Amino acid sequence: MNPLRVGMIGYKFMGKAHSNAYRALPMFFPGALKPEMAVLCGRNEEAVQEAANHLGWREIVTDWRELVARDDIDLIDINAPSDAHKEIALAAARAGKHIFCEKPLALTLKDAREMLDAAEAAGVAHMVGFNYRFSPAVKLAKELVQSGRLGQIYHFRAWFLQDWILDPSFPLVWRLQKDVAGSGSHGDLGAHLIDLAHYLVGDIREVIGMSETFIKERPLAENMTGLSAKSSADAPKGPVTVDDATLFLARFANGALGSFEATRFAAGHRSTNAFEINGSLGSVKFDFERMNELEVYFTSDEADVQGFRRVLATDPAHAYAEAWWPPGHTIGFEHTFTHEMLELTSAIRERRQPVPSFREGVQCQAVLEAVERSVAERRWVDISEM
Amino acid sequence: MNPLRVGMIGYKFMGKAHSNAYRALPMFFPGALKPEMAVLCGRNEEAVQEAANHLGWREIVTDWRELVARDDIDLIDINAPSDAHKEIALAAARAGKHIFCEKPLALTLKDAREMLDAAEAAGVAHMVGFNYRFSPAVKLAKELVQSGRLGQIYHFRAWFLQDWILDPSFPLVWRLQKDVAGSGSHGDLGAHLIDLAHYLVGDIREVIGMSETFIKERPLAENMTGLSAKSSADAPKGPVTVDDATLFLARFANGALGSFEATRFAAGHRSTNAFEINGSLGSVKFDFERMNELEVYFTSDEADVQGFRRVLATDPAHAYAEAWWPPGHTIGFEHTFTHEMLELTSAIRERRQPVPSFREGVQCQAVLEAVERSVAERRWVDISEM
Amino acid sequence: MNPLRVGMIGYKFMGKAHSNAYRALPMFFPGALKPEMAVLCGRNEEAVQEAANHLGWREIVTDWRELVARDDIDLIDINAPSDAHKEIALAAARAGKHIFCEKPLALTLKDAREMLDAAEAAGVAHMVGFNYRFSPAVKLAKELVQSGRLGQIYHFRAWFLQDWILDPSFPLVWRLQKDVAGSGSHGDLGAHLIDLAHYLVGDIREVIGMSETFIKERPLAENMTGLSAKSSADAPKGPVTVDDATLFLARFANGALGSFEATRFAAGHRSTNAFEINGSLGSVKFDFERMNELEVYFTSDEADVQGFRRVLATDPAHAYAEAWWPPGHTIGFEHTFTHEMLELTSAIRERRQPVPSFREGVQCQAVLEAVERSVAERRWVDISEM
Amino acid sequence: MNPLRVGMIGYKFMGKAHSNAYRALPMFFPGALKPEMAVLCGRNEEAVQEAANHLGWREIVTDWRELVARDDIDLIDINAPSDAHKEIALAAARAGKHIFCEKPLALTLKDAREMLDAAEAAGVAHMVGFNYRFSPAVKLAKELVQSGRLGQIYHFRAWFLQDWILDPSFPLVWRLQKDVAGSGSHGDLGAHLIDLAHYLVGDIREVIGMSETFIKERPLAENMTGLSAKSSADAPKGPVTVDDATLFLARFANGALGSFEATRFAAGHRSTNAFEINGSLGSVKFDFERMNELEVYFTSDEADVQGFRRVLATDPAHAYAEAWWPPGHTIGFEHTFTHEMLELTSAIRERRQPVPSFREGVQCQAVLEAVERSVAERRWVDISEM
Repeated sequence: MNPLRVGMIGYKFMGKAHSNAYRALPMFFPGALKPEMAVLCGRNEEAVQEAANHLGWREIVTDWRELVARDDIDLIDINAPSDAHKEIALAAARAGKHIFCEKPLALTLKDAREMLDAAEAAGVAHMVGFNYRFSPAVKLAKELVQSGRLGQIYHFRAWFLQDWILDPSFPLVWRLQKDVAGSGSHGDLGAHLIDLAHYLVGDIREVIGMSETFIKERPLAENMTGLSAKSSADAPKGPVTVDDATLFLARFANGALGSFEATRFAAGHRSTNAFEINGSLGSVKFDFERMNELEVYFTSDEADVQGFRRVLATDPAHAYAEAWWPPGHTIGFEHTFTHEMLELTSAIRERRQPVPSFREGVQCQAVLEAVERSVAERRWVDISEM
Repeated sequence: MNPLRVGMIGYKFMGKAHSNAYRALPMFFPGALKPEMAVLCGRNEEAVQEAANHLGWREIVTDWRELVARDDIDLIDINAPSDAHKEIALAAARAGKHIFCEKPLALTLKDAREMLDAAEAAGVAHMVGFNYRFSPAVKLAKELVQSGRLGQIYHFRAWFLQDWILDPSFPLVWRLQKDVAGSGSHGDLGAHLIDLAHYLVGDIREVIGMSETFIKERPLAENMTGLSAKSSADAPKGPVTVDDATLFLARFANGALGSFEATRFAAGHRSTNAFEINGSLGSVKFDFERMNELEVYFTSDEADVQGFRRVLATDPAHAYAEAWWPPGHTIGFEHTFTHEMLELTSAIRERRQPVPSFREGVQCQAVLEAVERSVAERRWVDISEM
Repeated sequence: MNPLRVGMIGYKFMGKAHSNAYRALPMFFPGALKPEMAVLCGRNEEAVQEAANHLGWREIVTDWRELVARDDIDLIDINAPSDAHKEIALAAARAGKHIFCEKPLALTLKDAREMLDAAEAAGVAHMVGFNYRFSPAVKLAKELVQSGRLGQIYHFRAWFLQDWILDPSFPLVWRLQKDVAGSGSHGDLGAHLIDLAHYLVGDIREVIGMSETFIKERPLAENMTGLSAKSSADAPKGPVTVDDATLFLARFANGALGSFEATRFAAGHRSTNAFEINGSLGSVKFDFERMNELEVYFTSDEADVQGFRRVLATDPAHAYAEAWWPPGHTIGFEHTFTHEMLELTSAIRERRQPVPSFREGVQCQAVLEAVERSVAERRWVDISEM
Repeated sequence: MNPLRVGMIGYKFMGKAHSNAYRALPMFFPGALKPEMAVLCGRNEEAVQEAANHLGWREIVTDWRELVARDDIDLIDINAPSDAHKEIALAAARAGKHIFCEKPLALTLKDAREMLDAAEAAGVAHMVGFNYRFSPAVKLAKELVQSGRLGQIYHFRAWFLQDWILDPSFPLVWRLQKDVAGSGSHGDLGAHLIDLAHYLVGDIREVIGMSETFIKERPLAENMTGLSAKSSADAPKGPVTVDDATLFLARFANGALGSFEATRFAAGHRSTNAFEINGSLGSVKFDFERMNELEVYFTSDEADVQGFRRVLATDPAHAYAEAWWPPGHTIGFEHTFTHEMLELTSAIRERRQPVPSFREGVQCQAVLEAVERSVAERRWVDISEM
């Protein structure tokens, strides 16, 4: 079988994570369709060449249009800044390429729908980068919900807490600018929670939210790379145009109640991406800082030994585990991307849509925007309005 | 100094907790004003006599009016069902007795205000039973906030999760009936969270909430005692008229964002009463199931050893700790009541109002009702409306 | 039924714990034989009178011989310093009194045996104060072992870690003097571990140990009370004559392997009294700093949800729990003494020996001394040698 | 700079871990000397070819002698079964190759010393595979000890608990045969603990141990691969010739006390590799199942906020962290090997010995054998005897 020839746009945080996944895939999942790290694309020729060298890409280009136009590329991997997603994806679809796009799919629901329509019209495989679905412990949660072992779901509560911009002197990076990033903690962190809610519980019916920007102005950044940036002490300031924190309540179509919180102002939380599900027969708890673990409770346990079990999802009974290491030997953040690329390449080989596809990206975007509307209009918003 | 002569109305769950506190107070806080367990009051003469015998009350009466009228009683302790609080408290105030009243202060904000007015007019000491304030670990959280060691507060999130009525065959006890209990999880559990929010963060400005009764009908109970009850398999059913779960978002006057959840449908949570506070200089986390512990984070810790500290609040530096046992020797649920009674008796001796007084009870009731209104009218409600 | 008239010798740390237990017993276990707090005994008249006042004892005496001789006393409770245990217990037995004696039973195995013989000859009830057996979570561990739910036991590992004398300037209190205390961490902390091992796993067959006194000299104390003491900066120093830490390995009669560690030099551990048991069908873990919890693992759990369960031993299925508070409402250190006194009074009423009796005290002392011998002679010591 | 041409012998569990490390090194540590995955060696041609294909090795050979003799190889990586280590290493040294050898270095101390001597005589770089040193959290523990931030070390306690052979029907794999594996839990798991003790605390002076083989006979295995194996229900049985569990006590040269336990019979522990260090100024705790975390305690913390901090070693202040992902994004088991290979390649480039070298391998082997002697002779053994 021919390898899958990949052209990737972007080479910072997500570009590194994807590159690693492409390289790990054949090593740990030898039966999978093999990705070929063909062409890396970025605007700064020197920087993209250096990245290609150490990440292991064969060629580089500096114009994504050139990349999309090439005959020898099967998959376009988009991890450029969010405001570039749409244009690239539309072009890639037109060129008949399979598309992997990092989240958020687009800056607006309208754009996201346009991307989905284009990909569907082109008949290509399309996938959106909700990588947390691919943690073995999250897969276990999914299995417990889907099989009915947790019973009817009553509650889903989730929070994604970070603290990297807690310091008011942290500079105004692109993630804090609405025109580039779309939104702040909401689209960056909340989007992951919403996708997990969709994956684990089902459709959300209505929402009401609350947002805040605690630090209204920040020093302009002198240079940025990935998540970090520098600014001088006397740098001029500019306005922060995205939310520092967004919380919302939700009702699911199945009657469950949801509570969501995304913030970058939770001191001590480097990246707490956590949820809990309570059902009529049991509960599960997850925290990505301890991503190999799922806490599981069953009401059917004997009366004197009921309690949350700390399950280490590294046993042969757990998704992906046998591909890696013996039980008790944990994996990390980057492995979620390897599993994600396994789903993508498997879907392409099996000529089906990978999950989550742009459809799930659109579904997430609809909730994101419904929350934003609910914040702006101070009222409950039904997702069907969107 | 003369002891404080107590007449107590109610002798189930809270009655036992209060009795134990009165008993423990002179033993562990020998300098405190000594309560005299004088008269126990309840409607069922046989049951109240039996309770008086083992709880250690000198006399009994079966009519609270008789108790309130007695000359030889200084303090009326009200832990009868919620619907009786108001009438007793008004009579006690008229009779010039100091009053301790379990929460919720009353079934409505209007009633609560009437109680406060009466107690203030009578010039008596009045206190409401928000016992969780009196956990040493919560006191530590308060100290950290108040002293500024956590900086400006950005987030308060709290949840009180139980699972004792998860089984649909659990009977329709009085706590599930609106006319007696006032509300369900909201008034029973949420009230504690609201009080902790007031205590730790400050005034709440506006709220929006969501409520649900997952199990709409339950078998009628045959007999009840405290939290437990029995019903036969073929018992007729009656409607549950209170909420099984209530969640709400809040904005505090100081700009902090709040998230609250109270539910009796969280499988595996016997009584998780937990909160987290995030400030500009640090964070704290608390869970009453591990009530001796407070997790504390400071942004000022050295860069390589930043992390939440598990502080066991049993050191001499912690409130109440030296009165009990050496460091590392923990206390339990009931100790919060002993500390509560220490505050009450100290305030009476010092001729000041104890805290939390009926004023804090009213403040809590205002938020409870604002949330209920926001649920009913599906809109944000400003506390000043109440 | 007549109450059990108690005369207690000692009124510091343990005296307070016992007093509280005597007062709590009728309140929470109304069916139990009621202790009457009759006479408190101590050498300093003023101090003992003050203690009697706040702890709630009716009378005082300053000579324990006088106490033991009284007709109106049924039970002698000995919590005086360890070097006084033997003489008092022998006298109490001769006087036909039931005896409760704090651990360690005596300073030597020989003395302990003499005490057991005397008590058995007198036909009185005798009990030794291994209070940790009476934690509900420990009772659950015992039930799981005894019923076979953990299978054959392979491992018992236990450690009792404290840090209260970590500071070299902490003064030379009586617990650091061999002639009064018998031994240091070994007899104080290790004794509890050994008793738990006996209780949970069974007889120990042979041991080998290692001891150390890290700080050889300390300032002489100016005054002491309970665990605390003061010394001035220029106080003369005296030699520490007990062990700061003692570790030992053990083989149980049933083939299990044991590992024990007691130390007062474990920074950050105020009082970590913890053990783990591994059997062929499961494991349990316990830590007294979280005394309401037992972690439980079963090999028979379904393959994808195996993990240690955090069981909160506050459910009706757990020992003592229904006497206290609803599920999820925890108890503390002092409750172990109430349960201990419940066993004592129940045994007296039922005319049987309480457990643990002086027999278990002797058994523990035999292991303590075998370890000491193994340290001194640098060899394995068989318990049958003792 | 020319890449480092690697020839690797073995391709199962460790072979996969090493291959991944060679692959990841240039991607995440672009400044490092680049390993070239040149030749993979194994006896079964078909299997080794398949492994080479998916692990990414350029060529294969089936005779390690041929590999060692090649001119185009700079480094021999030995992860064949333990009984083959010595012969290969001696040949590699003679051929002037750098050598990486998995632990245990050899089956006996004598052999290990011979290997060290040969490597030193040849002037090549030599390293032994104690990968756990290379966890960022362990590096942090080392830094805290070395810098004096924990003060004088009093205690080191460590346990490596697994349960993969708990089932008596698990077959007699090579790791349970003394002639191939050298020892059981002791050499496999205990060796890691000993190395960590050397690394973190220093030289061990004397030891006394205890060993047990709980299951004396097991069914013969039909086929084996890595850690797993199959056997039929009616397979004949053979004797287990290694220890299932080994515990020992130790005194360090600096006066600290050590406690060590290695077992494969700890139900519920898939791979708990944990230690704790207590010093005069603080303590640290580590558990490899939560390998990104180090718990840290300082006696100098303010009196009311003393407690173990959960430090997530993913901040820029932590070793290796910036090469991977943003703070809060964890790494896994395999990353320890990447860091190990970073040390190896850095040492080769800098013309110094990597650490841990064969010297540390010999030092570990000396303690392993001293413990075995202490078990056999039932006495304390001084390491200088060895």
